[in-house]
Amino acid sequence: MAEHIINQRITNLRRLLRKLNLAACIIPSTDPHLSEYVSPYWEARKWISGFTGSAGTIVVTLNEAGLWTDSRYFLQASEQLSGSEIKLYKEMLPETPSITDFLCSVLKASDMVGINGEVFSTNQVLEMQKTLIEKKGIKLNSDFDAMKELWKDRPLFPKSKAYIYNEKYAGINIKAKIEVIRKEMQEQKIEALFLSSLDEIAWVLNLRGNDVKCNPVVISYLLITQDKSVYFIYEDKVSKEVRSYLEKSAVCIEDYNSVAVHLMQLETANILFDPNKTNYHIFSAINPKCQIKLGNSPVNLLKAVRNETEINGIRNAMTRDGIALTKFLIWLEANVPLKSETEISIDKKLHEFRAQQVLYMGESFDTIAGYKEHAAIVHYSATTESDVTLHPEGFLLLDSGAQYLDGTTDITRTIALGKLTQEEKIDYTLVLKGHINLAMAKFPAGTRGVQLDVLARMPLWQRGMNYLHGTGHGVGHFLNVHEGPQSIRMNENPIVLQPGMLTSNEPGIYKSGSHGIRIENLLLVCKDQIGMFGEYLKFETVTLCPICKEGIIKELLSNEEITWLNEYHQTVYQKLSPHLSDEEKKWLKDKTEKLA
Amino acid sequence: MAEHIINQRITNLRRLLRKLNLAACIIPSTDPHLSEYVSPYWEARKWISGFTGSAGTIVVTLNEAGLWTDSRYFLQASEQLSGSEIKLYKEMLPETPSITDFLCSVLKASDMVGINGEVFSTNQVLEMQKTLIEKKGIKLNSDFDAMKELWKDRPLFPKSKAYIYNEKYAGINIKAKIEVIRKEMQEQKIEALFLSSLDEIAWVLNLRGNDVKCNPVVISYLLITQDKSVYFIYEDKVSKEVRSYLEKSAVCIEDYNSVAVHLMQLETANILFDPNKTNYHIFSAINPKCQIKLGNSPVNLLKAVRNETEINGIRNAMTRDGIALTKFLIWLEANVPLKSETEISIDKKLHEFRAQQVLYMGESFDTIAGYKEHAAIVHYSATTESDVTLHPEGFLLLDSGAQYLDGTTDITRTIALGKLTQEEKIDYTLVLKGHINLAMAKFPAGTRGVQLDVLARMPLWQRGMNYLHGTGHGVGHFLNVHEGPQSIRMNENPIVLQPGMLTSNEPGIYKSGSHGIRIENLLLVCKDQIGMFGEYLKFETVTLCPICKEGIIKELLSNEEITWLNEYHQTVYQKLSPHLSDEEKKWLKDKTEKLA
Repeated sequence: MAEHIINQRITNLRRLLRKLNLAACIIPSTDPHLSEYVSPYWEARKWISGFTGSAGTIVVTLNEAGLWTDSRYFLQASEQLSGSEIKLYKEMLPETPSITDFLCSVLKASDMVGINGEVFSTNQVLEMQKTLIEKKGIKLNSDFDAMKELWKDRPLFPKSKAYIYNEKYAGINIKAKIEVIRKEMQEQKIEALFLSSLDEIAWVLNLRGNDVKCNPVVISYLLITQDKSVYFIYEDKVSKEVRSYLEKSAVCIEDYNSVAVHLMQLETANILFDPNKTNYHIFSAINPKCQIKLGNSPVNLLKAVRNETEINGIRNAMTRDGIALTKFLIWLEANVPLKSETEISIDKKLHEFRAQQVLYMGESFDTIAGYKEHAAIVHYSATTESDVTLHPEGFLLLDSGAQYLDGTTDITRTIALGKLTQEEKIDYTLVLKGHINLAMAKFPAGTRGVQLDVLARMPLWQRGMNYLHGTGHGVGHFLNVHEGPQSIRMNENPIVLQPGMLTSNEPGIYKSGSHGIRIENLLLVCKDQIGMFGEYLKFETVTLCPICKEGIIKELLSNEEITWLNEYHQTVYQKLSPHLSDEEKKWLKDKTEKLA
Repeated sequence: MAEHIINQRITNLRRLLRKLNLAACIIPSTDPHLSEYVSPYWEARKWISGFTGSAGTIVVTLNEAGLWTDSRYFLQASEQLSGSEIKLYKEMLPETPSITDFLCSVLKASDMVGINGEVFSTNQVLEMQKTLIEKKGIKLNSDFDAMKELWKDRPLFPKSKAYIYNEKYAGINIKAKIEVIRKEMQEQKIEALFLSSLDEIAWVLNLRGNDVKCNPVVISYLLITQDKSVYFIYEDKVSKEVRSYLEKSAVCIEDYNSVAVHLMQLETANILFDPNKTNYHIFSAINPKCQIKLGNSPVNLLKAVRNETEINGIRNAMTRDGIALTKFLIWLEANVPLKSETEISIDKKLHEFRAQQVLYMGESFDTIAGYKEHAAIVHYSATTESDVTLHPEGFLLLDSGAQYLDGTTDITRTIALGKLTQEEKIDYTLVLKGHINLAMAKFPAGTRGVQLDVLARMPLWQRGMNYLHGTGHGVGHFLNVHEGPQSIRMNENPIVLQPGMLTSNEPGIYKSGSHGIRIENLLLVCKDQIGMFGEYLKFETVTLCPICKEGIIKELLSNEEITWLNEYHQTVYQKLSPHLSDEEKKWLKDKTEKLA
């Protein structure tokens, strides 16, 4: 995006701010459902700033403009903002002020900041309001929708049709799910439950859609009480079949836009919703007679703990994903020496191999194929401008995933295309050590992700290195590739790991201008044994794909780590080889051979 | 304690409850300063229950009596309660109800529970009040002091004299400390700070006393505002010298009992105190015009980060403690074969060796000398009834510490007195692995204890074992052996580890009826290097005493772990040997020899 266009858009925004007596405005990167990935209709922050990363917030005052984003996007944002007047604020670094601190430092008491309360969570607005007023007497107007006026060529509202997700993949039908939810509500004395997260709604109703790229969800809200369920969705998204399916399950359909009116007239004694996943306009709409309970939705946890059908599904999906990846890696090895493949072309090829697999429905996120220094840009997405040709040297970081009807995959391999430096090898081996140490962990029931996170980081910390992203996120079941409520991160998260939960294991190291390394598998939490004081759990690595051995310095691995790698590779070979040709088998045999 | 006496006391308590129309009462184990260790005057829970452990709470209803205690005391409590009508409730086990849940299950709506608000923290009472009323409509009367009426032969109120702690050991004088506190208060916009924790008060005023066994503190309160400091203490505890010292430092003295009246008349706009460390009567006394801010006292953190003088002090104290321990271990090795020493007799001997060291002031806690199965009782304290003779076989667990004027020590060694079983050796080696893994940790500034805790536990978790106590606690400087605010535990604690903090490193394993193992050193948090995204920290093990090698199965240790142990032993030898006789040196040389 040319910088002068961005600067012009900011100028236009300031004109609007002045007209409405606003001193500043904040534009985030989400939608009314607080989605991580959004339909183009809600990419307002991208439109106004030119920064294309998935996470980031722009703040525009009458004199300044700043973009706050996290470490995944430091390099990308700095490139994309260069030339524009927008200053980059790197989150999580000690010198970076928070957005509210920044506003308190540049605005004066009784100034008004405009936001669109529809695209901020309830908690975000309540906290901002409190901080701004307490620290500086600054007020917040939550009805400022700048895009309505400014964004002339705005994309269309997403209008994909909802479709039924077959019970043979979901494992449990809609009635049984709603029954469990209602039981949970009774126990918690909740009369109404409001769901706003698109993946939670999709899970409850066994419905899927195509409203967000890579995320098979449908824009909608869902209200559940003991005697009815109301699904708020645009009518033209509901086919006859879906309508009849929902009616049979006693779910009534209301217009998406009627949700606020509905909540104003709600007559239950209380209502529960997640204040981090429900927007502020929804919060404001609720009938004041109805007591608002803020908390985690029970659906979030129910969804995260997989049933047997889902577990079998993900195992099968992993086998097919592993077959596609094996075929791709063989192709890659043969074609890199020709020096005609690029970051973008290999992504197309990977897509082809996956698309040949049954039940394939698409990618689960935009592939990150980063060669050499591009891999240091944590969420790099190759563009025609940035795309480079691969040579038989250095590392290629490849983070990709697929949606299959029976499961969602997410895998990162860092592949040596040829000669590596000693530094690259050391870094690779340290990341691998961290990956293995987490994969080998056993722990008592009740353990939280924050307790295990260090296992993946310690080999790096020992040498003064770290990565600022999380070590593990949940993964949906033919749903969003990032899901909660569990996580393996440096931050506290009270959710305990439970058998049936799926989490990624993805330590990494990123050296700007040089190389980036990440090794990611998905882990399934399983029972281990009954031990002292109760039950112990462990991880089963469910991703099936060889881990590149070229970068390994064997002397840096402990005997236990070597054993884990050899055993993992043996499993990969056993599970994938029956589906491969003799030539492919030979290749895989070599790649999964014991560490020499 | 004979069971019939305990049962009679409970009967008397019930008579009092009925008289006052109370349905139950709760008696905790603390004092008005929420001390962990208390003077006999406040050992009401011990008196009424017969259970002598340091932590535990008794609940008596008209029909039932229960004692809640943590895993350290499961075995001891079960022995000491046997025969009485008191039922043991094991905390932290999934089947154990909380005290409030228990009360809700046995009492009925509008029943009244009596507590003495003076020995409960503000938070405890506020939470109990809320839970009891919300769950069952049960009310709380916080003015019920059962002991006043029932405890006829109650010990005297502690009346030791305060004495001045020399600046040459403290490193900073009282004026400078109060100045830093006032600056901190200004930054936080706090007009008054109320201190109730005896160690915080002792630290601020550079005063020590003998009101609590092993804890050199004085019963008192301290109120600090921008223009004055008020020290609430019984007049007869203040010598002329101390009075003149305090007056010079602009600290005025008021009677201990006048604290409530003083707080009622307080005219500052606000007051800060720690609701976990300040009792409910104090909270209730505060002038309603004064805004109460509940939060951590800034003193807690200031106290935990050691200055250079204190760091030099603890290093010197550790050398002397190591010399005493070495002499003791030599003596022990020579005397165990004679089969005339017992758990109690060796504790006396250890005391003698320590008492020979300069600056020695006493023990920092009651020694735990547990032989064989006694060591499985986590906070075992040998009594004349339980005392056993040591034989040249099995493990002796010895957890002890000293108060020196220049520092407080706390060390545990598990010593093979002779032949060990294979199970004992495996367990010992696993505990040692955990100890070493934590000791070797390096981590970025900003890391919390909860993130590192797993390092000490993982070798045990791998085999379905765990310990339910924390891995690391802070240690005072010639003060309480347990101090905050940092900790290394399974629970979240937002306090980050900072250079200058001291923490214990004490994984363990306890097998009821068989053996108990714990290996404890003190670690000092130090700077390591500037690395990726900022500063990295590491631990320096400051305790100097050989770790028994007899129990080690070398094959279970990694090369890194072996290197750590060998280097630690080399340090121990280098630092202690200059102070030892030739014969002692020879013994130490052998014990610190590289692992064969």
